[in-house]
Amino acid sequence: MADADQLRRETRELLEDLAALDRFGRDDSGGFTRLAWSQELLDSVHWAAGRMREAGLATEIDAAGNLIGRWEEGEGKAVVIGSHLDTVTAGGRFDGALGVLTGLEVVRRLRAEGFRPCRPIWVVAFMDEEGERFNSVMLGSRAFVGEDVPADEMERTDADRVRMGDAMRNWDREFSQISAAKRIQDVHCYVELHVELGPVLEAEGFDIGVVSEITGLIGLSATLRGVTNHAGTTPMVGRRDALVGAAEAITALRDSAVASATYMATVGSITTVPGGANAIPGACTFSIDLRATSDPGLQAARGSVNAILAQVCEAEGLTSTVTETYFLQPVPLDTQISDVLSRAAEREGLSYRRMSSGAGHDAMLLAPHVPAGMLFVPSVAGVGHAPEEFTADDDVARGAATLTSTIRELAS
Amino acid sequence: MADADQLRRETRELLEDLAALDRFGRDDSGGFTRLAWSQELLDSVHWAAGRMREAGLATEIDAAGNLIGRWEEGEGKAVVIGSHLDTVTAGGRFDGALGVLTGLEVVRRLRAEGFRPCRPIWVVAFMDEEGERFNSVMLGSRAFVGEDVPADEMERTDADRVRMGDAMRNWDREFSQISAAKRIQDVHCYVELHVELGPVLEAEGFDIGVVSEITGLIGLSATLRGVTNHAGTTPMVGRRDALVGAAEAITALRDSAVASATYMATVGSITTVPGGANAIPGACTFSIDLRATSDPGLQAARGSVNAILAQVCEAEGLTSTVTETYFLQPVPLDTQISDVLSRAAEREGLSYRRMSSGAGHDAMLLAPHVPAGMLFVPSVAGVGHAPEEFTADDDVARGAATLTSTIRELAS
Repeated sequence: MADADQLRRETRELLEDLAALDRFGRDDSGGFTRLAWSQELLDSVHWAAGRMREAGLATEIDAAGNLIGRWEEGEGKAVVIGSHLDTVTAGGRFDGALGVLTGLEVVRRLRAEGFRPCRPIWVVAFMDEEGERFNSVMLGSRAFVGEDVPADEMERTDADRVRMGDAMRNWDREFSQISAAKRIQDVHCYVELHVELGPVLEAEGFDIGVVSEITGLIGLSATLRGVTNHAGTTPMVGRRDALVGAAEAITALRDSAVASATYMATVGSITTVPGGANAIPGACTFSIDLRATSDPGLQAARGSVNAILAQVCEAEGLTSTVTETYFLQPVPLDTQISDVLSRAAEREGLSYRRMSSGAGHDAMLLAPHVPAGMLFVPSVAGVGHAPEEFTADDDVARGAATLTSTIRELAS
Repeated sequence: MADADQLRRETRELLEDLAALDRFGRDDSGGFTRLAWSQELLDSVHWAAGRMREAGLATEIDAAGNLIGRWEEGEGKAVVIGSHLDTVTAGGRFDGALGVLTGLEVVRRLRAEGFRPCRPIWVVAFMDEEGERFNSVMLGSRAFVGEDVPADEMERTDADRVRMGDAMRNWDREFSQISAAKRIQDVHCYVELHVELGPVLEAEGFDIGVVSEITGLIGLSATLRGVTNHAGTTPMVGRRDALVGAAEAITALRDSAVASATYMATVGSITTVPGGANAIPGACTFSIDLRATSDPGLQAARGSVNAILAQVCEAEGLTSTVTETYFLQPVPLDTQISDVLSRAAEREGLSYRRMSSGAGHDAMLLAPHVPAGMLFVPSVAGVGHAPEEFTADDDVARGAATLTSTIRELAS
């Protein structure tokens, strides 16, 4: 194992970059808000581009708002290191940003040691990985791989009723030109470092996670309908209370996911109609987030939702409707890249485990086109998308060492 | 039993008044929105005052916005018939309005038959029984009985940020003068006719409900707190999901109320924090509405909430806080007035039952000061606070006959 003090010394510049990024979008929560196409994100991209140029990279901001820093040496297609600088509202310091800045650190280290890559190395900060502002998740990587971005996304508005098309103009970008961002044809392979955003590495004491697949996702919106009535005048027996039905479904769904051990199920949002304290809810709408690493697992989860809702409706005299809001297939990552990542961790004397990513990442978009891999560094207490998100300096250092070694192998 | 055709003929003018009131505050839902101190309510009050004067009453709108129509005959304190003309948003046609207009109908009938009351008879439409706009429930009857209305209510704002004090000025009323509305010293007794807003009379086939008490209410706001985390990266086991805890509490509370048969429990509103579909809720806040006809019943309900929340917090690793938003003691109504109401129903050949009111009514405010009684007429399917609220013409007719007979006895 590398000496921890030495690792930290080597990582000083990366840690300083992370601290420098703090000035962009810091909000009252103590977290960071750099939403897609915002001024805060643009400022951070301009700063990062400057740091890339200081490291000797040629920079550009493409038609989809992706920042690309190119070390144009060697021949053929590029080894791409990517992640994102945008955040959710009041998000954390590491989610996305660590991957971009570590990619830059890798370039600095390889140049400092006189490494001559056999092919170009790019560092990319993708636009709008989070998708919060315009419900346009991974816009930048979608455009980068050449996916057709539907024209209706341009019309989507944020909480202040700003259209995405207009927000793009603040970056001097036109939605109609977005297909020009397609660069996948120039990519040899893709590697992304990210904080785990989950508790597994910390709980099990591993330094590094080598991601074998990104979990698939079914997003559902379920509505149960009963009969609204007055809370004081309607006897308890015979009520058709949509919220009671939803409550039964929520606990049953959790229990079924625990029992299955193959899928995860989360209800994150819930509303009632009419919503008054003295009205029996006549309708209740709630989100259902189902995740599994395999398609059969996802289908088992979906079947469980159907069975639970049918049972609840029967028991409580309700009806249900379910609409699908998201469907993402599980995405296997490249086994050879995973082997390179594992060897790199071993060379650095670090412990690692293969694992799934339960969250989506830009790597999902790249993986169907080119060999793609991901490595995780531990998140303290598994917290993500919150100001409390934290990864220790030593883990940042271990991630940087592993990624450097990985890129050295991939570009040799 | 009185002949139904004859009853309907006698009730023609009352039914026409009900239909005439339809023009005030009808909204797109097909329901009615006449909120406190609104122009729609003022228009309806002016119209009702005109109808009162046509029936020979002296009218005034007092300092609290209550419309009072006085038949100043006989001596001493008045027999007061009251209810309200204000509604909730998209409320029904009968809630409150039927009581006021039936009171007016009683006066017309008694005058038509040459009845000479031994004491004055008043018909009152109280301001803001519903309390929706400014969370100032029963403002008018509170002022009428001389309750001190806290000055901070004046500062409360509606959904459009209009202060109550300013809304009152649109009626040429000053909050500082509201104590001038105290008139309870001039009241002999109080009778209120209201639609049941519940399903009991219809389901059991009774014409009339004689209300023996108004149910007490504890309103609570409960918050469960766990740990927010990412839905995809956090294993199912070990989560501290505040919504799962709330769901368990909601079903347990319903089951405990059904089992108790002494109290009712309803959760009408619920929210999660952060509320995203892919975030495990770190907090969940929900309303709890507890009702019972006796204080021990209410306390049993409160104890059940405590026990359930403690159990859920233990099982799910959560903490809970509970704040009391309302506390209304159960209010017994006057047994002698109830006897008069029962005799009146018998005289009219109608079936009746004694029952509790699960909803609050202006009678709650009067009852601690003067003998007060209430009669209910059936609500179709028990629906209240909704455009679908409905009471059949025949039931309107039976209520008017019973109330006329009641007032004849009380003012003789």
